[in-house]
Amino acid sequence: MHVSPDFHQAVEFIGKRWTGAILWALSERSHYYAELTQVVPGLSDRLLSRRLRELEAAGIVERSVHAETPPRVSYALTEKGTALRPAISELRAWAQRWNGTHS
Amino acid sequence: MHVSPDFHQAVEFIGKRWTGAILWALSERSHYYAELTQVVPGLSDRLLSRRLRELEAAGIVERSVHAETPPRVSYALTEKGTALRPAISELRAWAQRWNGTHS
Repeated sequence: MHVSPDFHQAVEFIGKRWTGAILWALSERSHYYAELTQVVPGLSDRLLSRRLRELEAAGIVERSVHAETPPRVSYALTEKGTALRPAISELRAWAQRWNGTHS
Repeated sequence: MHVSPDFHQAVEFIGKRWTGAILWALSERSHYYAELTQVVPGLSDRLLSRRLRELEAAGIVERSVHAETPPRVSYALTEKGTALRPAISELRAWAQRWNGTHS
């Protein structure tokens, strides 16, 4: 049986550098942009912005602008993104149990 | 809360080009090498071999040489690899329900 193209594309999308880490954080709760720079240390501003745009384009994450001074932007999972939680949760449990994929 | 390094590493390992597709196939049943080249069309021999070596090194896949003429090599999930099935299954269900991550 051939591998489903949707699965193939989804697993590689989620496995892109830092995308999984961003999804982990957002699967806990919504985050302000500045908070995301804290939970994923080592991730550059530029790459974080790009990954968030990709996640928005895929319909997984939604962006909200808050009418504050200065305005703040927050990110949350959409319904489609929330539906990813069981997969993330299974992978979290696996990585914890088996100590990741170190050689 | 910081993202777990084990999760971070695992999600990016599994999301490497073609690794998820190979895991999908092996989560169904063990495969001979030649069969794997069929289930993941477009994957070169060289990259398939590399990915299988990485999966072996991570303790997820085991290789068996069968005493036949000519000898054939098959690949199966280890206990650690089998433990990934629920995560793969959740991701399969998600990709099917939401048609992947197309923009």
